[in-house]
Amino acid sequence: MARLFKKRYHRPGTAPGTLAAHAGREGAAQATAILYDARKTRSLPLRHPKALPVPTLGEQLWIHFQGTPDPRQLDELGSHFGLHPLALEDVANTGQRPKLDPYEENLFVVLGMPELVNGELHIVDINLFLGADFVISICEGATDPFAEVRKRLENGGGRLRQRGADFLLYALIDTIVDHAYPVLEALGETIEALEIELLERPHRDMLGKLHTIKRELILLRRQLWPARDLIAQLMRADLAFLQSETHSYLRDTHDHAVQIIDLIESYRDITASLIDVYLSSMSHRLNDIMRVLTVITTIFMPLTLIAGIYGMNFVANEHSWWAMPEIRTPYGYPVVLLAMVAIAVGMLALFRRYGWLK
Amino acid sequence: MARLFKKRYHRPGTAPGTLAAHAGREGAAQATAILYDARKTRSLPLRHPKALPVPTLGEQLWIHFQGTPDPRQLDELGSHFGLHPLALEDVANTGQRPKLDPYEENLFVVLGMPELVNGELHIVDINLFLGADFVISICEGATDPFAEVRKRLENGGGRLRQRGADFLLYALIDTIVDHAYPVLEALGETIEALEIELLERPHRDMLGKLHTIKRELILLRRQLWPARDLIAQLMRADLAFLQSETHSYLRDTHDHAVQIIDLIESYRDITASLIDVYLSSMSHRLNDIMRVLTVITTIFMPLTLIAGIYGMNFVANEHSWWAMPEIRTPYGYPVVLLAMVAIAVGMLALFRRYGWLK
Amino acid sequence: MARLFKKRYHRPGTAPGTLAAHAGREGAAQATAILYDARKTRSLPLRHPKALPVPTLGEQLWIHFQGTPDPRQLDELGSHFGLHPLALEDVANTGQRPKLDPYEENLFVVLGMPELVNGELHIVDINLFLGADFVISICEGATDPFAEVRKRLENGGGRLRQRGADFLLYALIDTIVDHAYPVLEALGETIEALEIELLERPHRDMLGKLHTIKRELILLRRQLWPARDLIAQLMRADLAFLQSETHSYLRDTHDHAVQIIDLIESYRDITASLIDVYLSSMSHRLNDIMRVLTVITTIFMPLTLIAGIYGMNFVANEHSWWAMPEIRTPYGYPVVLLAMVAIAVGMLALFRRYGWLK
Amino acid sequence: MARLFKKRYHRPGTAPGTLAAHAGREGAAQATAILYDARKTRSLPLRHPKALPVPTLGEQLWIHFQGTPDPRQLDELGSHFGLHPLALEDVANTGQRPKLDPYEENLFVVLGMPELVNGELHIVDINLFLGADFVISICEGATDPFAEVRKRLENGGGRLRQRGADFLLYALIDTIVDHAYPVLEALGETIEALEIELLERPHRDMLGKLHTIKRELILLRRQLWPARDLIAQLMRADLAFLQSETHSYLRDTHDHAVQIIDLIESYRDITASLIDVYLSSMSHRLNDIMRVLTVITTIFMPLTLIAGIYGMNFVANEHSWWAMPEIRTPYGYPVVLLAMVAIAVGMLALFRRYGWLK
Amino acid sequence: MARLFKKRYHRPGTAPGTLAAHAGREGAAQATAILYDARKTRSLPLRHPKALPVPTLGEQLWIHFQGTPDPRQLDELGSHFGLHPLALEDVANTGQRPKLDPYEENLFVVLGMPELVNGELHIVDINLFLGADFVISICEGATDPFAEVRKRLENGGGRLRQRGADFLLYALIDTIVDHAYPVLEALGETIEALEIELLERPHRDMLGKLHTIKRELILLRRQLWPARDLIAQLMRADLAFLQSETHSYLRDTHDHAVQIIDLIESYRDITASLIDVYLSSMSHRLNDIMRVLTVITTIFMPLTLIAGIYGMNFVANEHSWWAMPEIRTPYGYPVVLLAMVAIAVGMLALFRRYGWLK
Repeated sequence: MARLFKKRYHRPGTAPGTLAAHAGREGAAQATAILYDARKTRSLPLRHPKALPVPTLGEQLWIHFQGTPDPRQLDELGSHFGLHPLALEDVANTGQRPKLDPYEENLFVVLGMPELVNGELHIVDINLFLGADFVISICEGATDPFAEVRKRLENGGGRLRQRGADFLLYALIDTIVDHAYPVLEALGETIEALEIELLERPHRDMLGKLHTIKRELILLRRQLWPARDLIAQLMRADLAFLQSETHSYLRDTHDHAVQIIDLIESYRDITASLIDVYLSSMSHRLNDIMRVLTVITTIFMPLTLIAGIYGMNFVANEHSWWAMPEIRTPYGYPVVLLAMVAIAVGMLALFRRYGWLK
Repeated sequence: MARLFKKRYHRPGTAPGTLAAHAGREGAAQATAILYDARKTRSLPLRHPKALPVPTLGEQLWIHFQGTPDPRQLDELGSHFGLHPLALEDVANTGQRPKLDPYEENLFVVLGMPELVNGELHIVDINLFLGADFVISICEGATDPFAEVRKRLENGGGRLRQRGADFLLYALIDTIVDHAYPVLEALGETIEALEIELLERPHRDMLGKLHTIKRELILLRRQLWPARDLIAQLMRADLAFLQSETHSYLRDTHDHAVQIIDLIESYRDITASLIDVYLSSMSHRLNDIMRVLTVITTIFMPLTLIAGIYGMNFVANEHSWWAMPEIRTPYGYPVVLLAMVAIAVGMLALFRRYGWLK
Repeated sequence: MARLFKKRYHRPGTAPGTLAAHAGREGAAQATAILYDARKTRSLPLRHPKALPVPTLGEQLWIHFQGTPDPRQLDELGSHFGLHPLALEDVANTGQRPKLDPYEENLFVVLGMPELVNGELHIVDINLFLGADFVISICEGATDPFAEVRKRLENGGGRLRQRGADFLLYALIDTIVDHAYPVLEALGETIEALEIELLERPHRDMLGKLHTIKRELILLRRQLWPARDLIAQLMRADLAFLQSETHSYLRDTHDHAVQIIDLIESYRDITASLIDVYLSSMSHRLNDIMRVLTVITTIFMPLTLIAGIYGMNFVANEHSWWAMPEIRTPYGYPVVLLAMVAIAVGMLALFRRYGWLK
Repeated sequence: MARLFKKRYHRPGTAPGTLAAHAGREGAAQATAILYDARKTRSLPLRHPKALPVPTLGEQLWIHFQGTPDPRQLDELGSHFGLHPLALEDVANTGQRPKLDPYEENLFVVLGMPELVNGELHIVDINLFLGADFVISICEGATDPFAEVRKRLENGGGRLRQRGADFLLYALIDTIVDHAYPVLEALGETIEALEIELLERPHRDMLGKLHTIKRELILLRRQLWPARDLIAQLMRADLAFLQSETHSYLRDTHDHAVQIIDLIESYRDITASLIDVYLSSMSHRLNDIMRVLTVITTIFMPLTLIAGIYGMNFVANEHSWWAMPEIRTPYGYPVVLLAMVAIAVGMLALFRRYGWLK
Repeated sequence: MARLFKKRYHRPGTAPGTLAAHAGREGAAQATAILYDARKTRSLPLRHPKALPVPTLGEQLWIHFQGTPDPRQLDELGSHFGLHPLALEDVANTGQRPKLDPYEENLFVVLGMPELVNGELHIVDINLFLGADFVISICEGATDPFAEVRKRLENGGGRLRQRGADFLLYALIDTIVDHAYPVLEALGETIEALEIELLERPHRDMLGKLHTIKRELILLRRQLWPARDLIAQLMRADLAFLQSETHSYLRDTHDHAVQIIDLIESYRDITASLIDVYLSSMSHRLNDIMRVLTVITTIFMPLTLIAGIYGMNFVANEHSWWAMPEIRTPYGYPVVLLAMVAIAVGMLALFRRYGWLK
């Protein structure tokens, strides 16, 4: 399950902008760089952090890190592109809340991308920097979510290569937000399956499943509310590096974010209603069990009493006519048995009338 | 039941404005075109997508698609009327959230129309484009919801033909919003019927019904909250193509949307209260069952014990006066039976006093 | 009970401003007209809709309809006073949400007046038009809620006759809003009575009562939230026909509306808490019942077992010393009876210690 | 308990500003007047309502009514100090919502002061008028809440005498708001005591107590939310009679009001959580009871059956070897008794393993 | 546990700015003073309250009190640094709500620092004053939370010594806010541990733990909501003493506060869901218990009846063929025993089919 508390943080009181290496961060980041303009794309080797490429006029640069760079690499990046130490600290300390920090030299965006791994929700932290002619994307984990965008860039044709770095930023944000759709589709199907099952034959481990769905919706919401606000901010604010033509595309992404939040909210409402249905089905089952117990008890108790009465030893008193004369009559036994059957049948009829028998 | 997740979406990372044909979209869209001015109406054949009509000065054009056009048709429409690729993508990908996208050349409106089909709620996606002298409406499904409007247009007389294309847009939006009234009326009647039934004789499948109502209210609300905001935006904003005289008509539609949301919210509150009533009636029923069990048990247990005691074989010890002398008295048996009756009656009296009988 | 869905509506797609006669609307509207200025009041006969009175300079006209006028009458009114067709449609279609529609020629106000009829909440629709020198009030139902205002007008003396038509409008709105006080007082008393009863001796039909209260609060709130906003709008906006001196009076009405909403909200909170108390009292009662059952069962089961043991027929084996020697001892029977009593008393002592007896 | 609905109101439709004597209002109001400037304080007799004092230049006048004045007195006050008839009506009709009404000639403030009387919450209505050089305070009930302020005024020394009438108003409002602290302290202690008791040994009358706490929090909140807004309005608005130096003092009172609301909200949340704890403890207790019943039943039923089997009369068939040979073996009886013990012990071991015994 | 109501307050009506010594405040405050500029740091002895240090031009002064100073010390501080009496009163009366009070001569900030002591949440009150060239920090309790900041200041190197007093204030606020991270990390781990335990083997004392978590979240939220607003105010407002370069650092702290509130909210949601899971597991357990009871009862009752029937004494009537002929057949006993086994097995099969046996 995705962790509730994921953020890495420094000891309170540490100087802002500190880039300490975190223990347990294994594996180096894979960096790729692409220089492109309207006509061509160039993939660059990125062997040494000191030898970072510089876009010429009209060119855009996209550097993508798969995995978090180590402090040394971040330092290099920071001094090469003029990134703010606070932003670099946020890159190092994963588990940030989605946010937009406009610095003077560039724009810093943090987003969490929802992803299903083996049916479980994971939030992948992605950091984006936008400068006048470059985009730097840093993505936690091993799978590159931007493969599709890279292919579009290399194949040319679309708007992506014609426009500036800000359009690439939009394309990346759009990709991140759209990753919520398959997650919500899967959740929607799980909820509908549970819905049908619950109304037909509820059983015990459903509440665990409902709880897991609720938990995932809570985590999703924690990412998407701030993401929506962030995109709205990108659209509205007069931010440097963002051309106004990109705004109508960002509006489209914003619509998606709003729709995703709408879906999350209705899933939450439906899940809450399902929990009611579940709890009530539990109490139904209890009622059923108790009805069976009561019917059985009510039928057998009088019969047992009758058997008990004729098991009393008053018959031993042979001198008294009053001592259990029924026993001494020839048809006493079958009459008592028939009386028992009559009582049982009568009770059942009564229960049926009260609707207690199913 | 209406699906929780209905949107069609591209793989994350796909270029914006992609118009891929969706599998499983069967049946061609039925297109009709009407050219009208204050004096006359002309229905046009719309055989070939390339031969789209052009309104002359003073004329308004209304093209209506029943069913979603295929990508080729959309492409034609787009280039003929200057529709934005992002808007066309939204038309192709049904399941959009209601929204208003003002583009430079035209206005794009997405709305979901609630409809009851065999007592089940369905949301029909409707896309509307407004230009200077045309309205394009694209409606999912097979039944034309705008037949009434078309009739009014053809019969002339009203304001519809005197005014511009924006008044037609208003008429269509008003029709869409007003479709919520019969749905809410039906829901209101279902709720009131459940209310009466619940307070009189609650039974098991009511919670399923309550859950279905809640679900439909959630889906309705998901459509109508954004619809209300959209209409407010249409009223307030200084949008091109919308004349100020249409505003007071839109205000009327806005009032309807607000009233519908009010109704939805009070239905939700009442449904929540009904679930409380239902759960409590379940616990009442359990109490009733347990009371019966307890009364039965409490009456028969002492009687059975007495029968058991006089069934003990101490009577076999004939040498001791202490061995069950009651058995040897002449009236032992009837006295014991009377004692049993007395105990049973006493118990019943006690239970009646505690209010346990009925 | 007041209906959840009360609005009359046209078939979606009908032309705006349509005034169709609604079936089932029986009885003609009673119209009264009063012409007044600072010095005198004149009641006018209003026999024919065509012969509507016209106020002279300095005079104010108040026309009151008790019951909804038929379409013909509304048409006459509309053309005489320049009322907007959309407003007239709203008058015909009762069940509107409270709203304020400022038209150019006059102001249109819709309000719902809460009223208790035989202890049940009813919402009476009232439509008000304010022009430069006239007020038209249209009130559903048979009882005139404005009798008191008419008396004040006829008796003169107060501010009512000195001021313009807008002050009359204020007086009518104030009367409508103040009708919520007796309703809330009655509800408050019902809630407090239930509160005391619930904490002392809860019984079954209380939840139905609580549900009814909740329902009435929901319906009340649906009227008063928009009423409050409407009055605030009247106060703040620079509306024609409303003189600024009336504002401080409207502020008083606004304060009342806000207080009424406060009351409704706290009633709702208290009702929610009472439902908790009720449900918990149900579970208490179940606990009580189960405790009795358990105590009875636990006491009688061991005794019955003992009786059963000494009812076994091993005594028949007369050759073995081991076969129930207890039976053959002289004091076996009384000793067993005493043992039973001892067990029962011991059990009761144990239960008392665990606090299970009361 | 404090009443839910406390407001006195006129019949709907009554003229605004009507000062009718309310029945059941017993006892005359005690009026005291103090004239003060920076150097001295003068207490004035206030025998006759017609002879109201007038402050000279530089002097401030504070008139305090303990108890609500009768209509005649209010009339006198109104004409002497130029108080608005609507304000005087509000004074007469107690149970107002806290509000601030700025009239041209003076400022009218209504506040509710929370007070604990015998551990029960009461809301005392207080009306305040601020003019250029006077403050009139009217306080429901018998105990003067402003005794401390009067002492400060008479002892001089502080800022109170140096500053104008507005500072006195601030001092009175501050006193009213601060009265919530002891109430909240007492409530907090009650909640914490309940918290400990609930987690240790929950019992039946706790829910009644929790309900009472919730009710008092609801009533408190109804007073303090509007009080907070009122003080914020006093601080921000450019109100006549309020000097800007008083603002930083009012900010302090505002901070108190906000903190009090924070406390109320967290008390509510904690009370809600306690109700969950309580309900769950009820269901625990039921589980306990049922476990005991089940354990007892499960142990004794098989034993009783065995006793029943050996109580069957097949032994009477002396001719068949198959007829209960166990009875005829010498050690049958002790073997059966030992088997019974073994079964009972085995059952107990099983229950212990399932964790059913405690 | 942290107290719900912690504030110290004066008797309502006391003069504002009163500095009364509170009883039960034991231990003197430990004061330390540091004078620093870009090049060096000087620790000063602070023996006598009258001999407070004065920073020279370019120097900054930081005075830190560990523990609350007594009224005399506060008086000295106030007159030396020009602190407002209302602020000093707030310092003396701990338990303030976080707030920002801009006075003319300086800025007053109150914050609550969350801290875990033996796994229990405590809120430490911290008061901060910012002047042109000084910061005064007053921290309740015994442990200095700013040790890390002092070390950074003494070691030099960072931005802390280069910048003015406002940067020191930021560093202190940042330290206070960041103290919530370890608290939330610990809470998150507790919640996740409970989550796993609940879904696997729920037991009784979990609800107490869940309640404690909820309570701590409520207290945390009470501190952090106003803290967030306070930092936003610091960032936005044009406050004296705060240089604009510090704003981007404060934005970072603001982001932290927002993320912390997000975490608190999702913890609350998850805790609420866990309570549902818990309550449902209780009802499951009840169902299990009742199923066992019902199965046992249903199996043994018919068997006991059979045994009872053959225990009846009709056999004593030797003259009638009808009197229990079964007893007189040779294989009667084993046949009855086999019938009993058959009934028991049949019942078990039936229960298995209904899924009642686990």
